[in-house]
Amino acid sequence: MNPLDYLKENEAKSLEQLKDLLRIPSVSAQTAHKKDMESCAQWVADYLKKLDFKAEILDTGGHPVVFGEYHKSDDLPTILIYGHYDVQPADPLELWKTAPFDPIEENGYLIARGATDDKGQFFAHLKGAESYLKTAGSLPLNIKFMIEGEEEVQSENLPLFIEKNKDKLAADVVLVSDGSQFGIDLPAINYGLRGIAFVEVKVTGPDRDLHSGSYGGVIANPVNVLAKLIGQLHDDEGRIAIDGFYDNVYTSSDWEQNQLANLPFDADEYLATTGSPKYRGEKGFTPLEHTWIRPTLDCNGITGGYQGEGAKTIIPSWASTKITMRLVPDMRPDEICDKIEAYLKKICPDYVTLKVIKHGGGNPVQVPTDGPWLKAAAKAVKTAFGKDPFFTKEGGSIPVVETFSAVLGLDTLLIGFGQHDDNAHSPNERFLIKDFHRACQTSAALFDELSKVKV
Amino acid sequence: MNPLDYLKENEAKSLEQLKDLLRIPSVSAQTAHKKDMESCAQWVADYLKKLDFKAEILDTGGHPVVFGEYHKSDDLPTILIYGHYDVQPADPLELWKTAPFDPIEENGYLIARGATDDKGQFFAHLKGAESYLKTAGSLPLNIKFMIEGEEEVQSENLPLFIEKNKDKLAADVVLVSDGSQFGIDLPAINYGLRGIAFVEVKVTGPDRDLHSGSYGGVIANPVNVLAKLIGQLHDDEGRIAIDGFYDNVYTSSDWEQNQLANLPFDADEYLATTGSPKYRGEKGFTPLEHTWIRPTLDCNGITGGYQGEGAKTIIPSWASTKITMRLVPDMRPDEICDKIEAYLKKICPDYVTLKVIKHGGGNPVQVPTDGPWLKAAAKAVKTAFGKDPFFTKEGGSIPVVETFSAVLGLDTLLIGFGQHDDNAHSPNERFLIKDFHRACQTSAALFDELSKVKV
Repeated sequence: MNPLDYLKENEAKSLEQLKDLLRIPSVSAQTAHKKDMESCAQWVADYLKKLDFKAEILDTGGHPVVFGEYHKSDDLPTILIYGHYDVQPADPLELWKTAPFDPIEENGYLIARGATDDKGQFFAHLKGAESYLKTAGSLPLNIKFMIEGEEEVQSENLPLFIEKNKDKLAADVVLVSDGSQFGIDLPAINYGLRGIAFVEVKVTGPDRDLHSGSYGGVIANPVNVLAKLIGQLHDDEGRIAIDGFYDNVYTSSDWEQNQLANLPFDADEYLATTGSPKYRGEKGFTPLEHTWIRPTLDCNGITGGYQGEGAKTIIPSWASTKITMRLVPDMRPDEICDKIEAYLKKICPDYVTLKVIKHGGGNPVQVPTDGPWLKAAAKAVKTAFGKDPFFTKEGGSIPVVETFSAVLGLDTLLIGFGQHDDNAHSPNERFLIKDFHRACQTSAALFDELSKVKV
Repeated sequence: MNPLDYLKENEAKSLEQLKDLLRIPSVSAQTAHKKDMESCAQWVADYLKKLDFKAEILDTGGHPVVFGEYHKSDDLPTILIYGHYDVQPADPLELWKTAPFDPIEENGYLIARGATDDKGQFFAHLKGAESYLKTAGSLPLNIKFMIEGEEEVQSENLPLFIEKNKDKLAADVVLVSDGSQFGIDLPAINYGLRGIAFVEVKVTGPDRDLHSGSYGGVIANPVNVLAKLIGQLHDDEGRIAIDGFYDNVYTSSDWEQNQLANLPFDADEYLATTGSPKYRGEKGFTPLEHTWIRPTLDCNGITGGYQGEGAKTIIPSWASTKITMRLVPDMRPDEICDKIEAYLKKICPDYVTLKVIKHGGGNPVQVPTDGPWLKAAAKAVKTAFGKDPFFTKEGGSIPVVETFSAVLGLDTLLIGFGQHDDNAHSPNERFLIKDFHRACQTSAALFDELSKVKV
């Protein structure tokens, strides 16, 4: 029997096993669930052990990482599969149709906390591995599982854990399934994330708030000055006006342009979900290009002077803003922090003092579009779904992907099997049962495809 | 004996009487001093009665107003003298050299809470009246005293009181002594205050904070947009760019330009007191002109998005700012609120929604510089001080002066006898004893001069 047939025959059993996993209320944020977290880690480790993986539960300082390894041959590729066994808190309970940790099936969905985020998705890869071990008797390549327990609490111990376990985690590529397809029956592979650079900007004028009657008109107002500086960060066509900001922006390839053009993206519908009256993007680009392949600059917050009710007639002593910029290949956060600082210093008038705190950030990441990993993933998706995947990007960052890139030097394949309306962090979290099974099949097919990559 | 000689002969006694008044801890802000407030009002009323004034203690809903009237003749001018018998709290007590309500004399100063603000100053006018009554046997004109008890708590009941007592308060001119000279031995008469207009501006984009990764670059950021709007409120030379903003700005007279040019004003010293690195004013005007005779626009506060520690990567749903504009003759607050609203609507892009809340404000006030009141006041000052006063203005507003103008239709003579370093709201409040005596003499001389004005 081949692995895919094994998965098909065992669909009912796989689903029951997933339900077992979902019954463990592994809520990382709530200390009352500490024992459940331990049970859940143990459940995953035990499952791996049954599959002939060497499995360990490794301390991180917080909730542990379950690490499993199956080594077939030094000549074969090694894939590092990341997932997380912790889940979001279930509150507010009254909005659930059913008990969040008592999975039910309804209209083709499996409903339970953690169904799509991320138990259903990482468990699919355990099933993918199982399908080989139960049929061929061994895996076609080397696999390492790293299933963490703190993703829903910002993975605060993970970067150090990865740093400390570089050798143990060494691999050729990372696989993460913790997201969504482009839509129902629209499987997608994400090959890129934007990076980020973060600065705080403070403008100071007088050494205290001044009476705006006595001093208004002669002492510069830091709120007005900061506003004018911010206003000069974009030109009238939505381009960022910082000198050299676009110097290292990559040129989108023909391949990428084709992918973008072929996506079934409804711009009006997307705008409507934001409540914003109209798009405002850099001239000459489409909404998807704005969010995926072009850099941005946003003030995430601004503060200065009196913000309570009514009037307080002051010239505030200072005003400040937090600015994050989203970066695309081949921009670097330190470079961009330096450039915004230089630009602001250049345009800031001398009747205030300017301070720019440069916090750095994270690099953009992009899996080479002409490399073997994307091709292998695409074939595997086609095998499982019967159709070619879309190739997508993400406008935000996923910190663990940046860590894999920065610390382990690895590309990450992001193949999400969920849907955008799976209620990942909300009541009635769900996962399409057919998506779970197709995820299992994609996993098995992917191991086959990846095993053929020359490393 | 003439009134001025009477004052000279009785200087020691006058000072002791002032000390009696200062010993009453009439702190309007603290309910523990309610009885002291009543005692103080009674003290003032009793003093007026001894001078043959008809005196009443009038309810305001808060601390009462002491009203005293001496009517000489329907053919003579009537002067309404405003002052306040309440004082600031004395805290922090440990910073006082002496007990705040136990006046002492030191280096020519009388030190006590209320010495300059405002007991020493309004009492000088009681002494001015007394000097006539004790020598000539009657006043040379009609005088009304309105001494309130809530100036240090924003006079919240006063506007309604004035409105309700229009007839009782009817007069030809108002006299207020509750401020400072231009410097030591530099007496000054203030003939103008700027008005004010207040708006709040809110820019809204998406209907909630959005993830700046997923939406950055395509959904307009209200903080950035508001900042750009604010940046367009001034041009590069410091002029306000709102259409028609300067339409009704008066032309400063030659007389005013002479006054400004002759003031012993040290611009560097003034700048140093603010801690600001450099002046920033409308091109073509001096610092005193910027603060006294030109209109302004200041953001008193701005708020939007995340203002806590660290980063939060959002496109804020909205951002807002509070803007006050200082007005000079003949600008009107409603006119200016309408103009800024129209301008902002014109320049605001359609990818956000704009809301301008117009709060109106107060008119600028200016005593006619060629009218009789300023001339009379100048002569009186010269008599008492032996030198001509400076004519000054104030960049801020004094609400009660606007009320006198708006409700009673009266000009106000502002003759402050204090000094800028009298610690009016701080520990060790003080009043130069020679200034107190010159205030009494100015008062007597002023009654004489005002009595000659044809009304």
